[in-house]
Amino acid sequence: MIQPFDPVKFIRTKQLGHANSRKDIGDFIDAMVHGRVMDYQVTAWLMAVWFNGLNMDETTALTQAMAGSGKIMKWDDPESVVDKHSTGGVGDSVTLILAPLVASMGLKMGKHSGRGLGHTGGTIDKLESISGFRTSLSEDDFKKIVTDVGCAVAGQDSDMTPADGILYSLRDVTSTVDNESLIAASIMSKKLAGGAPSILLDVKVGTGAFMKDIPSAQSLADRMVAIGRESLKNVNAVLTWMNTPLSSSIGNALEVREAIEILKNESDMNNPLRHVCIEFASRLYTMARDASVRAGRELAREKLESGAAYEKFEKMVNAQGGDLSIALPAAKEVMEIKAWESGYITKCDALCIGELVRDLGGGRKKKTDEIDLAAGIILNKRIGNMVDKGDVLCEVHHNGTMETEDIKAAAMAAWEFSDEEPKSIGLFIY
Amino acid sequence: MIQPFDPVKFIRTKQLGHANSRKDIGDFIDAMVHGRVMDYQVTAWLMAVWFNGLNMDETTALTQAMAGSGKIMKWDDPESVVDKHSTGGVGDSVTLILAPLVASMGLKMGKHSGRGLGHTGGTIDKLESISGFRTSLSEDDFKKIVTDVGCAVAGQDSDMTPADGILYSLRDVTSTVDNESLIAASIMSKKLAGGAPSILLDVKVGTGAFMKDIPSAQSLADRMVAIGRESLKNVNAVLTWMNTPLSSSIGNALEVREAIEILKNESDMNNPLRHVCIEFASRLYTMARDASVRAGRELAREKLESGAAYEKFEKMVNAQGGDLSIALPAAKEVMEIKAWESGYITKCDALCIGELVRDLGGGRKKKTDEIDLAAGIILNKRIGNMVDKGDVLCEVHHNGTMETEDIKAAAMAAWEFSDEEPKSIGLFIY
Repeated sequence: MIQPFDPVKFIRTKQLGHANSRKDIGDFIDAMVHGRVMDYQVTAWLMAVWFNGLNMDETTALTQAMAGSGKIMKWDDPESVVDKHSTGGVGDSVTLILAPLVASMGLKMGKHSGRGLGHTGGTIDKLESISGFRTSLSEDDFKKIVTDVGCAVAGQDSDMTPADGILYSLRDVTSTVDNESLIAASIMSKKLAGGAPSILLDVKVGTGAFMKDIPSAQSLADRMVAIGRESLKNVNAVLTWMNTPLSSSIGNALEVREAIEILKNESDMNNPLRHVCIEFASRLYTMARDASVRAGRELAREKLESGAAYEKFEKMVNAQGGDLSIALPAAKEVMEIKAWESGYITKCDALCIGELVRDLGGGRKKKTDEIDLAAGIILNKRIGNMVDKGDVLCEVHHNGTMETEDIKAAAMAAWEFSDEEPKSIGLFIY
Repeated sequence: MIQPFDPVKFIRTKQLGHANSRKDIGDFIDAMVHGRVMDYQVTAWLMAVWFNGLNMDETTALTQAMAGSGKIMKWDDPESVVDKHSTGGVGDSVTLILAPLVASMGLKMGKHSGRGLGHTGGTIDKLESISGFRTSLSEDDFKKIVTDVGCAVAGQDSDMTPADGILYSLRDVTSTVDNESLIAASIMSKKLAGGAPSILLDVKVGTGAFMKDIPSAQSLADRMVAIGRESLKNVNAVLTWMNTPLSSSIGNALEVREAIEILKNESDMNNPLRHVCIEFASRLYTMARDASVRAGRELAREKLESGAAYEKFEKMVNAQGGDLSIALPAAKEVMEIKAWESGYITKCDALCIGELVRDLGGGRKKKTDEIDLAAGIILNKRIGNMVDKGDVLCEVHHNGTMETEDIKAAAMAAWEFSDEEPKSIGLFIY
């Protein structure tokens, strides 16, 4: 006899520290999506998971059930399709560059991205700085652009992973966000539904990241890689530092401007964002093609230098309705923050910068907030630079929504100086 | 500045093992009752409580907030008003006798009781065996009957402790019933709202009770007494055994019949139910009046023997619309279970008996089940009795809804025999 799914028993099992079966997890997600398990039962289970955790088998089963709760993307030329996910940071505009860059290398990236929340930005918000750019695409349009151009970046498709949408919105209001298995399942369910066989995961570590220390980031990375591999995907993870912003521009329109500079090969060759994009492109290339990392790196550099990557960016923007000839939104006021002493910069804190940009209107405190696309900060100096008192550290772009003194205090709080040159912390942890 | 109540922070505090403040607990209950905290947040908090517990201050604050979420009964003659609560058992028809008994002793008991669920019966169901008996009374009618007669027994008043109703229904479906603080708060909030200054708590212990062992029952009793005393009530608790049914009749109409026999002084003087009722009446008398337990006991016996207690019962039944001249519901079939060996009875298990009565239709598996008021069991023998093979152990009263063989097997499973006389386990633990 087939037993009907019993939500109270399911909760009890987890509550007592036992493992939920793969079948029960599948039934639970199915019942949740179809309204046969109530929200208040879901959150009781989530809290029990927060206390007792999920083992690898449970996490994988949950991820697969979540992925299977909606549409799974199918690609005509799957071996060329790659995907990337970042756990989010400050000035992390990698996708803006990476998508057209890998497209110029002959790969395909059809990426569903999110909006910003809190001190971290979102790719979809950034792209909306471009006049006319449509981030809401039908599946057919999305696929057609990926096929024709090689890349497309759109907002979440509501037909994909509905279970993740339900779970995330409940976790957000019940203090159950911070559980590694639930985080891993949320991310990986979207990656599985995205249909790419090769996936690179960028787990950020540091003050501006969700993961504050290496062991927790490592553990999350391991778990996501294991889920992916159990699901027959080619998955690799990198850990990158997020103690200081990745790009030199933080804020939606400002980040698009910097991304365009890099794509046009007009940026400083030591720009860390450029470096990360080349590295990620080469790793994805290696995963999708029978090539060495070195060959991938050379190809990526070549495509940036030749303008081929920028060409893909232009085509993608045009295909998504954007018009690059119209100027990006610009803030009315630009305020310079100057060094109040001389020395080496030892700190330019990602969290401080991210929170200031958010407070200037460049980000959201809650999901429904409107944002100011022009607000942001441009860093003229970075960690390790030597400055003289009076040198401009950064420019704050704003529209007068905060008091000048408050901006100054918040901006200054991000920086520290020392007579001794700091040891480089590098970009990649591994 | 007054901070608005933040449910996520409230959940987080408990989740991290810290104490919720009295103010936050009050705000939480208020927000819950007014729909400003969502069910799914309540259950997340309940699960965090299940894991991390509530300390005494939190439990008292929760109880008082729950009591204050609705109407609190006010009595004209408060010093005479007494209340009793049992944690529930099999054949626990104490209220049927105790309410009129204390009324005959000059006290007042206006009791709100519940319905049966699972293997335990409910006073309201039992009273509905009496033709015409109304268990749903307006506040005015309820108070008038208590004032005029001295006692009334009605179902839960939906204007009282609405917070308990919400919390209980959520706990029931999220596996968060079994937490001592939540149990204590649920019981005591109703007792505080009942408005009686003197309260006797009967915590049942054993197979047929919610509490299976003395330490857990003791701990619950201590917690409830502490909450009551913090709330300026005169509260005492007794622990009584529930390894075997308290009354000799189990099932709604059968229990009413036995209660009437005791009230008419027609029962065996050693009937344990009679003994418990006299003891409880004397303790309540001592709490409400300046008298010794012995004086209370004598007065209770006198009121039973004189018929004064029965007279109060008759008046209460009449006031609540019941008609004692109409026969109680009777089952079509009576099946005798005979001893299959000779010896001392060492076991007559409360849980087995309770579950059989429930399965015969005398109880509910889920709240919405209809019940058969006539179904039940009469015990002809009790623990410690010596029986010869073939003696009738009990009579099963039923209406043919179960197979004869199944009834027999279930009934026999309750009993055990031995050549050695069992040590009496007594009734009162203390």
